[in-house]
Amino acid sequence: MRIVVALGGNALLQRKEPMTAEAQLANIRIAAIALADLAKDHQIIITHGNGPQVGMMALQSAAYAPQALWPFDVLGAETQGMIGYQLEQELMNVLPKSQQCATLLTRVEVNGKDPAFDRPTKPIGPIYASAISETIDPSWTMIEESKGAFRRVVASPKPVAILNIAAIRLLVKAGICVVCAGGGGIPVVRDEHGMIEGAEAVIDKDRTAALLAQELKAEALLILTDVEAVFLNWHEPNQQAMKTITPDELDKMSFAEGSMAPKIAAACAFVRNGKGIAGIGRLQDARAIIEGHAGTRIIAAHKH
Amino acid sequence: MRIVVALGGNALLQRKEPMTAEAQLANIRIAAIALADLAKDHQIIITHGNGPQVGMMALQSAAYAPQALWPFDVLGAETQGMIGYQLEQELMNVLPKSQQCATLLTRVEVNGKDPAFDRPTKPIGPIYASAISETIDPSWTMIEESKGAFRRVVASPKPVAILNIAAIRLLVKAGICVVCAGGGGIPVVRDEHGMIEGAEAVIDKDRTAALLAQELKAEALLILTDVEAVFLNWHEPNQQAMKTITPDELDKMSFAEGSMAPKIAAACAFVRNGKGIAGIGRLQDARAIIEGHAGTRIIAAHKH
Repeated sequence: MRIVVALGGNALLQRKEPMTAEAQLANIRIAAIALADLAKDHQIIITHGNGPQVGMMALQSAAYAPQALWPFDVLGAETQGMIGYQLEQELMNVLPKSQQCATLLTRVEVNGKDPAFDRPTKPIGPIYASAISETIDPSWTMIEESKGAFRRVVASPKPVAILNIAAIRLLVKAGICVVCAGGGGIPVVRDEHGMIEGAEAVIDKDRTAALLAQELKAEALLILTDVEAVFLNWHEPNQQAMKTITPDELDKMSFAEGSMAPKIAAACAFVRNGKGIAGIGRLQDARAIIEGHAGTRIIAAHKH
Repeated sequence: MRIVVALGGNALLQRKEPMTAEAQLANIRIAAIALADLAKDHQIIITHGNGPQVGMMALQSAAYAPQALWPFDVLGAETQGMIGYQLEQELMNVLPKSQQCATLLTRVEVNGKDPAFDRPTKPIGPIYASAISETIDPSWTMIEESKGAFRRVVASPKPVAILNIAAIRLLVKAGICVVCAGGGGIPVVRDEHGMIEGAEAVIDKDRTAALLAQELKAEALLILTDVEAVFLNWHEPNQQAMKTITPDELDKMSFAEGSMAPKIAAACAFVRNGKGIAGIGRLQDARAIIEGHAGTRIIAAHKH
């Protein structure tokens, strides 16, 4: 099977962990083992989030030169380098010697008039105990992710086109394990003359992963996170993990904005547009989710 | 002709300029126009330095969390993202619409026992007016690049192997304009079990460019900088630009360590090992150097 795997940025550098190279490397080594196991029987294309990392890079830029902040398109490109490098290296350390990997910078076009530019929703960077403190720039938009856990949010427009898809296809066709479209892709917009320039945004990685899976005609989209499965009545006494479910059934339920809801929306979009299935579950269950022994599988229709 | 072009990191973010996204983008736009002109008649593969950028990233990391510095392999990967993205984007904005570009993260193996690890020589980051000030970490090694212009230096081991060469070849063969091996490549070492891990170093980009040109069987290696040509008796009343010269003739001369000497060493290595020529000169003369109207061309032997 050809599988697009989307790794959560939080699975690579957890929100409550110190933001260090060592912590990220340790998490990436765990991810690499799970992915290598999946790669034994399947062709995998890997994409990843960058929420904690792109937020940290913005803070580094501000700490060094607050008068000359580096914009989010460039910071996103930096995180593709930072995370992609460690992922590729640790994957190749555990994959068979004959298996090549390649990490491609990926620019993703968004619509400059996307209403998301006026309504920041994408959480980035560390958790703050308050929405007002001397470490928080008054110009930032802050949200309370969970009780007493505040984070900065930035604009998150919809991905319209993966600009480097031809090169990605070429590498995938050659049997290379490709890491691409990190952080949802480097956000860019096209002006009226067809010129492309950076956009001040962070694209949702699950949305881009669904588009990537569709463009590559993947048979599965696997969204890996730190939650076991999609639950009905999450955090209620009657919570129930869903094993197999259809987009139509999911439409009738509601899920946490900013965490499970975008994953389900991306999974449903892929299943509805393509001929494949989607899976949502824990990183360490990657193979088991595809085999139907763990997580939640989203399928076009139940068998009768 | 297949040409590997090496752009100086200083040509992209000049040492004396403010280190901002805008300044870098403006320089990259100038580079893109010169490169697109060259690409009209030749297949180009682009690599670039990262001295100013990787130094800035180290300073950003230190400014945000001095107790948890990000290491130079990861910072190098970040600069491949940062510079590669802007280069690819501006190139594609000026190249014909049918011309694809791709930017590949590139890991370059060095020898863990390279004596360079004990003797830092590679200048990175901004210029300082003194080697001792509150903005300079006492653990850094500093050199005086020119009178009153101090810079931090880090270890710069020799590149041994370009680990991603198979993917680079595949993209080049498909006619894609590839940006790769930025900053001399992400420095990595191999342990006794064959496992690869990051190295605390910055590889000289001209040395890696020569290796890349050799591996890709390029017909020319073009090293672009801010100096018009290779000069005999540089800065003396009788200084003389050399138009065409051989490696054997260059061996008898001496050049500025840390600036012209490594460029000449890389050019000579390529010309001696391959069947191609090398060119050294200004960015805006890229096409003229290849055509023999500007800069210095290093050739295997003079015609008789």
